[in-house]
Amino acid sequence: MDLNLYLKRKQNIINCFFKDYLLSIKDSSCPKHLYKSIAYSLTAGGKRIRPILAIASYEALSEKSKSILPVASAIELIHTYSLIHDDLPAMDNDDFRRNKPTNHRVFGEATAILAGDALLTDAFGIISNTPTRPNTLNSVIREITHACGPHGMVGGQMTDIMLEGKKAKKSDIIYIHTHKTGALIRAAVRIGAIMAGATINKLNSLTRYGEDIGLAFQIIDDILDVTGNHEELGKSIGTDIARGKNTYPSVLGMEESRKNAELLIKSALTAIKDFDSNAEPLREIAKYILTRRS
Amino acid sequence: MDLNLYLKRKQNIINCFFKDYLLSIKDSSCPKHLYKSIAYSLTAGGKRIRPILAIASYEALSEKSKSILPVASAIELIHTYSLIHDDLPAMDNDDFRRNKPTNHRVFGEATAILAGDALLTDAFGIISNTPTRPNTLNSVIREITHACGPHGMVGGQMTDIMLEGKKAKKSDIIYIHTHKTGALIRAAVRIGAIMAGATINKLNSLTRYGEDIGLAFQIIDDILDVTGNHEELGKSIGTDIARGKNTYPSVLGMEESRKNAELLIKSALTAIKDFDSNAEPLREIAKYILTRRS
Repeated sequence: MDLNLYLKRKQNIINCFFKDYLLSIKDSSCPKHLYKSIAYSLTAGGKRIRPILAIASYEALSEKSKSILPVASAIELIHTYSLIHDDLPAMDNDDFRRNKPTNHRVFGEATAILAGDALLTDAFGIISNTPTRPNTLNSVIREITHACGPHGMVGGQMTDIMLEGKKAKKSDIIYIHTHKTGALIRAAVRIGAIMAGATINKLNSLTRYGEDIGLAFQIIDDILDVTGNHEELGKSIGTDIARGKNTYPSVLGMEESRKNAELLIKSALTAIKDFDSNAEPLREIAKYILTRRS
Repeated sequence: MDLNLYLKRKQNIINCFFKDYLLSIKDSSCPKHLYKSIAYSLTAGGKRIRPILAIASYEALSEKSKSILPVASAIELIHTYSLIHDDLPAMDNDDFRRNKPTNHRVFGEATAILAGDALLTDAFGIISNTPTRPNTLNSVIREITHACGPHGMVGGQMTDIMLEGKKAKKSDIIYIHTHKTGALIRAAVRIGAIMAGATINKLNSLTRYGEDIGLAFQIIDDILDVTGNHEELGKSIGTDIARGKNTYPSVLGMEESRKNAELLIKSALTAIKDFDSNAEPLREIAKYILTRRS
């Protein structure tokens, strides 16, 4: 299969969903300034890796269906909110994201905080409006809140900030990565499976796959912050070191980090080795995570 | 009925729910600093008026039941998140709330932002874990996201900030108040009714009640910011004027504002005049909103 083409096609349907979502906000009583801020970050050219994972996981088990699209897109809303908030001056204080000024640099801090709040809120609104079994939607919401709450993504970001400039242990960096980045990626894969009505065995396999690629994804992110190219990455290089951030390379060294990422991807592929050819996109995405340059 | 006793008893069961919720976070992998920040704001002595309204609305239509408690409490989590974010330096820059330093003054801005994010996320987690018909829970989530998203509470806060120091029209101040404060109060009342399986007629009556008391609540808030007592209110007086905030009194004058609030409470009472004695708490709360001093 042609992964590039696959990603482009999925990105396209996700972006179409966002266009419709943004039109619905524009058409509402939402203040224009807030609308622009939300639209700015949601259309800033994200790779849509999380919603694509949800869709690929769904399609590995089930016929194609439109019911996964809103739920998958809601996951990207949550990812986008987390980026906006993480970039804030009080947090990581980032000026650039995807080659563009960060949300607060364009719209101001107050608007950026509110745009994040709005995206997080609307993610649950979109899910609750998805036409499928209500029971399934409740399971999806439980997955997301578990992955993103105080013991999930938010907890990971908190720990990341608190350990800035301090020497982290290996267990700290694993906690940060599995919570700050890994939890939502794991949830995306699991949500695809849950929406498809996966058996417990299949769900367990996909959970393992999601955990492995989630951690590998962030390790590669850390590596790219050292070895990457500003143009390709769309953000400054070396910011982690400059900021005293704990990263996989800073804690474990570059070689060990790359080896870890490779082992994780191998483990992810093993977890879904019994799946049929419908899981091919999941396999290709796993390999792509290891070789990506942005 | 003794409203004071009623409020105290309801506050007590809501606070017990929060104790259990906080223990569940403490027991999780949530970073201690974040846990403390969440616990600080959630136990800062709020009046719990929104969850009590949800419970009172539920009990006006249905037998007492424990299924409304988690959902009602989730509404207070959302209210608490909105206060933490609204108080931030980039927003209203408030130093005190309920006679205590605001969250970011104690825990720092980054933690305050994350505590708000965590509370908003967990609100949906709590709802999705409530043992009742999944269909009903989806309706509840739709209500909340509609009330709190970019065309709801967040939109109201955005407009409030954008018009700071500018002369607002009457329509602006009505937009701000009905969205920033009114929407969640309206939703709390409606959610109680939805959970109780209200008929469309009853739901419409309670919606009217919720809209009226929601707007009246904020008008009285504005009035108290001019005429109130620092000790009783738990925050500084005159901050709205000092900050160039548009308020009901600043746009319509004090007398007109009070008259408006009185008319709204009268209208709210009319909306539920055909309800039986189980709606007595709703009636007493409406009157209390008009006479409250904090």
